[in-house]
Amino acid sequence: MKAKETAIVFIGFQNDFCKEKGALYEGVKDQIKAQNTIRNSQDRIQKARGKCLTLLVPILFEQNYCDAGCEGVLGPIHANVLQTKAFRKGTWGGAIIDELKPTPQDIVVDGKRTLDAFNSSNLDFLFRVDRIKNVAFCGFLTNVCVEGTARSAYDKGYKVFLLKDCCAAISAEEQKYVETKFFPYMGEVLTQDEFLKKLK
Amino acid sequence: MKAKETAIVFIGFQNDFCKEKGALYEGVKDQIKAQNTIRNSQDRIQKARGKCLTLLVPILFEQNYCDAGCEGVLGPIHANVLQTKAFRKGTWGGAIIDELKPTPQDIVVDGKRTLDAFNSSNLDFLFRVDRIKNVAFCGFLTNVCVEGTARSAYDKGYKVFLLKDCCAAISAEEQKYVETKFFPYMGEVLTQDEFLKKLK
Amino acid sequence: MKAKETAIVFIGFQNDFCKEKGALYEGVKDQIKAQNTIRNSQDRIQKARGKCLTLLVPILFEQNYCDAGCEGVLGPIHANVLQTKAFRKGTWGGAIIDELKPTPQDIVVDGKRTLDAFNSSNLDFLFRVDRIKNVAFCGFLTNVCVEGTARSAYDKGYKVFLLKDCCAAISAEEQKYVETKFFPYMGEVLTQDEFLKKLK
Amino acid sequence: MKAKETAIVFIGFQNDFCKEKGALYEGVKDQIKAQNTIRNSQDRIQKARGKCLTLLVPILFEQNYCDAGCEGVLGPIHANVLQTKAFRKGTWGGAIIDELKPTPQDIVVDGKRTLDAFNSSNLDFLFRVDRIKNVAFCGFLTNVCVEGTARSAYDKGYKVFLLKDCCAAISAEEQKYVETKFFPYMGEVLTQDEFLKKLK
Repeated sequence: MKAKETAIVFIGFQNDFCKEKGALYEGVKDQIKAQNTIRNSQDRIQKARGKCLTLLVPILFEQNYCDAGCEGVLGPIHANVLQTKAFRKGTWGGAIIDELKPTPQDIVVDGKRTLDAFNSSNLDFLFRVDRIKNVAFCGFLTNVCVEGTARSAYDKGYKVFLLKDCCAAISAEEQKYVETKFFPYMGEVLTQDEFLKKLK
Repeated sequence: MKAKETAIVFIGFQNDFCKEKGALYEGVKDQIKAQNTIRNSQDRIQKARGKCLTLLVPILFEQNYCDAGCEGVLGPIHANVLQTKAFRKGTWGGAIIDELKPTPQDIVVDGKRTLDAFNSSNLDFLFRVDRIKNVAFCGFLTNVCVEGTARSAYDKGYKVFLLKDCCAAISAEEQKYVETKFFPYMGEVLTQDEFLKKLK
Repeated sequence: MKAKETAIVFIGFQNDFCKEKGALYEGVKDQIKAQNTIRNSQDRIQKARGKCLTLLVPILFEQNYCDAGCEGVLGPIHANVLQTKAFRKGTWGGAIIDELKPTPQDIVVDGKRTLDAFNSSNLDFLFRVDRIKNVAFCGFLTNVCVEGTARSAYDKGYKVFLLKDCCAAISAEEQKYVETKFFPYMGEVLTQDEFLKKLK
Repeated sequence: MKAKETAIVFIGFQNDFCKEKGALYEGVKDQIKAQNTIRNSQDRIQKARGKCLTLLVPILFEQNYCDAGCEGVLGPIHANVLQTKAFRKGTWGGAIIDELKPTPQDIVVDGKRTLDAFNSSNLDFLFRVDRIKNVAFCGFLTNVCVEGTARSAYDKGYKVFLLKDCCAAISAEEQKYVETKFFPYMGEVLTQDEFLKKLK
């Protein structure tokens, strides 16, 4: 697998998910610790920069959530974001964590507002014009936005990989479901080390 | 919820999934029986015709699968379709089952080749021009194409509903996962009777 | 330019556009004759089959146009289609003309209802999974659906080509505008012979 | 036409197009003056704020154009952007002009890299979740990005309007072509005053 035809997408590595006092940290903190998600992902992006295309995809809304729709259009998962005041532009909670702070070698993709990062961003355009064929996924939550973006990538004809030690769900059960039941329908589930060995 | 702003999407009700000797029947037959999927779905479409927009979305390929990509582009789930010779145009296996045979009140949507039915069809266009706001999902497999199409609908701003007794996965575990873990992030999980009562 | 990475898209080669008594023939017949569109396109598809990916993309609606939206959603160009009863499934007018009758080497793409053929079909999926990089366009009308589909292809990262003697607009002025003013922003304008020479 | 179901999209109001020393100003300056584009658009956005959804859509690339694709993927119009060093993030040329400087009532849409602003942004998502039905277009160039975005909006089922005194092409001929030949296929061509009178 050629590194230059390969992208790694880091979804939702923001303080609101990853850090004490983050708006949604409580729900995912046990799995982050169990999986060592942050350390593994930091390791992954550092080794990948300059070889693969590395992209950071935060989910971000305006301060007043005017870009999340008129009342009641979106469902429970968005209602929770609004209620907890998570993922707002210009706030500490919305910012990408220091461990994965973007460098000039990364692309930060704007526009994500929903589960599938392709849905409202230029992610697909970036892949197309760089002739990307393989895409690996890291981030939060494994069975929500990570799986959703990987599904969309698969349907668009990309080879998809889940870096299982670089993501987290809100329970071990959900993490295991994605790793063993769903993702194998579409592609491969690997540790970041296993993935690294496939690249050349 | 206004019936005229509501669509019901029936995914994959084809002989290859639903009938003895169908190419993929073995995998899903126990859940079809346990859920009484066919009978419930037939009941649902009959009561919905002329009130809601009813759409049948088969997955179909050319006889030689020339429209499934050059070798190795798509992953394991498509490899299985090709190996079992499932879902080919003009075959008995690819045909929609008699119980849900389309009438002039239904729209049959062509183009589905992947998990998300929106990805390669005019499903979204049909919803837009008919001012659809609510979409309910039935069919196969609950956690693959049904969930995948519902995810895409949610991300596009539609209210989404899973008619839990009108779908089937390959195991009770996967069915239960979608019903209790994933789908509630996005929308409501209902029996077809419960859904019927919400319409006016 | 590698033939196997190249697709040729034939848009709207249906009796309603191309033949006496076709619903919309009057508007375009002079330009069809002036350009010798039918003969050139027939020549092109015959020489391309088996080398390039050849696709026929008709625009087709249900007999009652239920798939064209509730009243007034779409604009003047669709109003004209409905008024003239053009492009209905199962009618002579909607059928692809004999000169370009599909063979098993061609793919017929369903779903086109609007100007851009990518918008409501699986055209992009077919290109992706066949690793297509170059797309040439033929058909009707040069400045409406042909230009519209080529614009979309360009934005998706394909190299685009207009086969100028294989298309027609409703006036020489509009044809010339596309050839000399707009299309050169995006790609190359060639005769089908010139295009043939670029392939290998 | 209800104002709250109506959006106005301002495309490319950046120094590189609109101001002396802007990278692409030379090409469009005569038409900007002839049409009084800047003054009319400023007037339009000021009157529309708080009534309609007002969106500013710049086209912007990374400083090194790493998000414009590997060499030669995109065509002549992008080659020109790269050659003139236009539309780079963080530069004066890429900034929105003072006359249309965004206020908290406007949404600034990120992601546009190609002709159709829907292609690589969350524009469609924003319209969907705000239940927008009508979209009016202003900006640069009338027959390239403005027409291209309006085509895409039409195909998605929105009512489309061209505010003819709020846009500019590089020649009067091209401006007139869009106003009189192409746009009437899809929707209405109005002055901003005429458009204002339709809103309620």
